[in-house]
Amino acid sequence: MALVVQKYGGSSVADAERIKAVAQRIVANKKAGNDVVVVVSAMGDTTDDLIDKAKQVSPLPPVRELDMLLTAGERISMALLAMAIANLGHEARSFTGSQAGVITDGAHGKAKIIDVTPGRIRTALDEGSICIVAGFQGVSQGTKDITTLGRGGSDTTAVALAAALDADVCEIYTDVDGVFTADPRIVPAARQIPRISYEEMLEMAASGAKILHLRCVEYARRYNIPIHVRSSFSQKEGTWVVDSSDIEGKRDQNMEQAIISGVAHDRSEAKITVVGVPDKVGEAASIFTVLSEAEINIDMIVQNVSAASTGRTDISFTLPATDGQTALTALNKVKDRIGFESLRYDDRIGKVSLIGAGMRSHPGVTASFFSAIADAGVNIEMISTSEIRISVVVAQDDIDTAVAAAHRAFDLDAEQVEAVVYGGTGR
Amino acid sequence: MALVVQKYGGSSVADAERIKAVAQRIVANKKAGNDVVVVVSAMGDTTDDLIDKAKQVSPLPPVRELDMLLTAGERISMALLAMAIANLGHEARSFTGSQAGVITDGAHGKAKIIDVTPGRIRTALDEGSICIVAGFQGVSQGTKDITTLGRGGSDTTAVALAAALDADVCEIYTDVDGVFTADPRIVPAARQIPRISYEEMLEMAASGAKILHLRCVEYARRYNIPIHVRSSFSQKEGTWVVDSSDIEGKRDQNMEQAIISGVAHDRSEAKITVVGVPDKVGEAASIFTVLSEAEINIDMIVQNVSAASTGRTDISFTLPATDGQTALTALNKVKDRIGFESLRYDDRIGKVSLIGAGMRSHPGVTASFFSAIADAGVNIEMISTSEIRISVVVAQDDIDTAVAAAHRAFDLDAEQVEAVVYGGTGR
Repeated sequence: MALVVQKYGGSSVADAERIKAVAQRIVANKKAGNDVVVVVSAMGDTTDDLIDKAKQVSPLPPVRELDMLLTAGERISMALLAMAIANLGHEARSFTGSQAGVITDGAHGKAKIIDVTPGRIRTALDEGSICIVAGFQGVSQGTKDITTLGRGGSDTTAVALAAALDADVCEIYTDVDGVFTADPRIVPAARQIPRISYEEMLEMAASGAKILHLRCVEYARRYNIPIHVRSSFSQKEGTWVVDSSDIEGKRDQNMEQAIISGVAHDRSEAKITVVGVPDKVGEAASIFTVLSEAEINIDMIVQNVSAASTGRTDISFTLPATDGQTALTALNKVKDRIGFESLRYDDRIGKVSLIGAGMRSHPGVTASFFSAIADAGVNIEMISTSEIRISVVVAQDDIDTAVAAAHRAFDLDAEQVEAVVYGGTGR
Repeated sequence: MALVVQKYGGSSVADAERIKAVAQRIVANKKAGNDVVVVVSAMGDTTDDLIDKAKQVSPLPPVRELDMLLTAGERISMALLAMAIANLGHEARSFTGSQAGVITDGAHGKAKIIDVTPGRIRTALDEGSICIVAGFQGVSQGTKDITTLGRGGSDTTAVALAAALDADVCEIYTDVDGVFTADPRIVPAARQIPRISYEEMLEMAASGAKILHLRCVEYARRYNIPIHVRSSFSQKEGTWVVDSSDIEGKRDQNMEQAIISGVAHDRSEAKITVVGVPDKVGEAASIFTVLSEAEINIDMIVQNVSAASTGRTDISFTLPATDGQTALTALNKVKDRIGFESLRYDDRIGKVSLIGAGMRSHPGVTASFFSAIADAGVNIEMISTSEIRISVVVAQDDIDTAVAAAHRAFDLDAEQVEAVVYGGTGR
């Protein structure tokens, strides 16, 4: 008998028929002899509808109350799912994040899980019940206020509960079959991959792949919880996200050492160039201190070689486009103190990333990637690399061309493939 | 500075505009120097919508999960109301029933309040915040499950909080101006009455007047909390429900000792006649023991004079029509044991009641009431009386005629009037 944690996203429980279908899947798993804990998101568009309601009464609602409002969404879906399971003759009990022991900090709208104390879930499981838990929500440690976890929150709830309950697997159900070597909407030859390491999945998520959120994969890696990403509309095996040692073992047996897992892309970033920064020690640091104080997450940074004639240089960086205005405002405030000349803002950019643990031992990968993109006629604006990833910034209109070129260059539509991603689960 | 508890029903917060209007009323009260605690129901049709959703997944949803589902309704309305208040520049915090310390028994769907421990509300008030509390809900003492209080639950939450916080007044906002001498839809000359005693209001509520629920008035009487029933759409004074000593005092000053407060009616009952019951000691008792075990609340009872020739008698009683089928089933099971001949069921009946503390000292009231109804050509099927109430059962089609006749006979459209009710707040 195994303990299985399952997570169903909003599209999987969008209406009564889908809720009933999910209930049957859950009951089948219970009948197979497993203990089952289910984490569920709000139904379909519920969250958007609630946000609309909030905007009708206040242009800038207090975050505490926004969290109180939004958590009604999971309350509805989890109660309906428990009812649908009961209608199939099995006992199910629903629990709010607070009741399930999801303890967070007090950062409303983007709370972090501090601890999970699932005493009531354990008791209910011991009594033979299926447990339905509200995703995306918790209760703050000090003030006992209701919090939401922000993007990727339901996936993270599922993995955190799996860790706290020492579950055997955390199944993430979504509306696609698993993780793909590229977004099939861009690369029709993209293939679903059977296994990917936490590290590769983290790079994927950081590179714009939306199927699993960064924090959920980080949590799974820390507690070594196997994640199984699969479709709620089919019985097919999906993609397993596991420790790299489990993959190496399999690969050695099968002689399938793939170099590249997949190609990810991200359209959500913008680029800011700080023009004419005095080329002195500490100038770059002071720029990024200002941005850090404005709570802006910087992704890639490039500092041009200083022009000897002027003693000045340009510094470019990428950031979420949604933070663009905040960053420009923060930088303009310190323009005189830092002494740069001007700011340039460009949100017509995109990022294309090649991910694969195998590239560690294959020095030619970078060159091949750049060649493929250049041969496709795409100009590279910025470059950043990690041990298992190469990312380039290109014009937004060139993203599809660059993704397709890279995918082709590394033979990802061949038989042995190992990863990537598209689609998206909001919370 | 006073502590005011206000309760707004579903129609008062049915949409964004009404929520904003309610927010302004609350802020005005706060600005006047009062501490304000607001109890709010779910928006308009939310509860019905949620029940519809439940029926789509299960014909008979488990009560625990139904409570979990329905409590999402107040969560939405209270968060929106807190946002609307914040938008007017005042701090407001919303609290679920559980957070507000509303402790109940475990009877899902019809839970009773056991205790109210409003520590968090008290703290928030001390910090200058307006408190918004979800009506209709609580948390069960043992299992810590979310419960709902059933009909009249939000009014009862407000009165219970007012008692626990030692509030100066509990204002119940609704869509009518207050308590009327009769339903104005039946009696256009019906008038709003300024003051009514708890006892009279209890008899009103028990007699079918829907503006305040019995349990809420009982709670207010027990803790001597003045209730002010008024319209959320106007600034007019409504009806005060207070201790009878407060009313006697006022009446003596004004020489306005009214005999009758008002006329109430009830269309929701049915009548069952148990025909041919053996006229032996204990037979009636055994019939009502059976009904009690089936958890059916009996209202009026009439036992006919036994026919000497047969040694048998008929026993008639009224009960909520919704319990009719359950009662018939329960009685038919014991037909042979008790030895009655047959059951007759009639749900085409209604009850008309005359209420007034003044009738205690006016023996002619009963006769005048019966005469008025007889003169209107209405046949009386059953009669029951209390110290301050006379009720008769008539054919349902005769209710309006009987109410109008009684109202006229006791000069309730004259200057001095003291009570009743119509309309309805569901929860």
